[in-house]
Amino acid sequence: MSKGLLIVVSGPSGTGKGTVCDAWRKIAKNLGYSVSATTRQPRAGEVDGVNYYFHTKEEFEKMIANDELLEWAEVYGNYYGTPLKKIQEKLAAGEDILLEIDTQGAMKVKAKVPEGLFIYLIPPSLAELEKRIRGRGSETEESLARRLGAAREEIEIGKQYGYVVVNDEVENAVATIESIRIAEHCAVSRNIDVLDELKK
Amino acid sequence: MSKGLLIVVSGPSGTGKGTVCDAWRKIAKNLGYSVSATTRQPRAGEVDGVNYYFHTKEEFEKMIANDELLEWAEVYGNYYGTPLKKIQEKLAAGEDILLEIDTQGAMKVKAKVPEGLFIYLIPPSLAELEKRIRGRGSETEESLARRLGAAREEIEIGKQYGYVVVNDEVENAVATIESIRIAEHCAVSRNIDVLDELKK
Repeated sequence: MSKGLLIVVSGPSGTGKGTVCDAWRKIAKNLGYSVSATTRQPRAGEVDGVNYYFHTKEEFEKMIANDELLEWAEVYGNYYGTPLKKIQEKLAAGEDILLEIDTQGAMKVKAKVPEGLFIYLIPPSLAELEKRIRGRGSETEESLARRLGAAREEIEIGKQYGYVVVNDEVENAVATIESIRIAEHCAVSRNIDVLDELKK
Repeated sequence: MSKGLLIVVSGPSGTGKGTVCDAWRKIAKNLGYSVSATTRQPRAGEVDGVNYYFHTKEEFEKMIANDELLEWAEVYGNYYGTPLKKIQEKLAAGEDILLEIDTQGAMKVKAKVPEGLFIYLIPPSLAELEKRIRGRGSETEESLARRLGAAREEIEIGKQYGYVVVNDEVENAVATIESIRIAEHCAVSRNIDVLDELKK
């Protein structure tokens, strides 16, 4: 258990991964998170190094060029990314790190850190997903249809994750994710040194 | 979650796997167990089909010949084995099945059921293992030394399991094993059908 786990949680938009991850963070021990880097302007109250690491476009592109980001994307003209170094430091110190990112980012992380723990959160059904998105009241019929279509495609991507967790109730989902974390720490592949040490 | 998991728990002799498995069975839901077949004589109070399935040597050898045993071994002239059919029925019905068997048996099961869940219980240290075996007061110095030597070899076999769990406290070990069971039910490899169903 000397090295931390990089834990990636994703899910189709509307699955409630933000709610689940927030609830998990509140009860989980030794679970750190990654502060993203961005080139967008800080909003009122946002603090550099807490909400985001704020960078200029030039700085960010230098980070890309130097391979200092675990994954990054450009969204509406702004860069967003996950700085690698801080994560590596925390993992080496034995802390687990939670990354709550979209499927595209997750697949980039998987390419770089295949030993990470990839959890895919799904709604109990597409009907329930539609209900949840409608409940937010912020979608037109057109954007709703687009999001449900995207969800179908994303579910297929879910097969590339290690685990799939149904978010029926937040509490259940959190308990299941915590179980997966505990289990992964016991994976033999992560404990060869423990067994070798035990033989001595 | 439609299909049950075959869960194999082993560990070096003296690790306390019997105590852990008994404690786990008491709290775990949907966790069945396998009744072994044997050719040894029933002891007072033992019931056929509850403690063991009692067979003649001829019957048992026929079961071997017909490949009706998941694993079997001959110990002091008697056969012991795990009947396959009952287990398959329970797994198909969605029940998890716990097999508490030694490393040799476990490796035979792994060859036949690679999708099983293989958990290796280890003591916190060899010193602790020695203490526990001594505590039973039933060993000579010679047999103790032999068992500790065997434990060292068995720990190496542990690398062929999926998970390794330290039995420091029975309660902790039980909670960890239960977490592993929950996690394995969420493994994407076991949930491809769930994802396909969700897309519909």
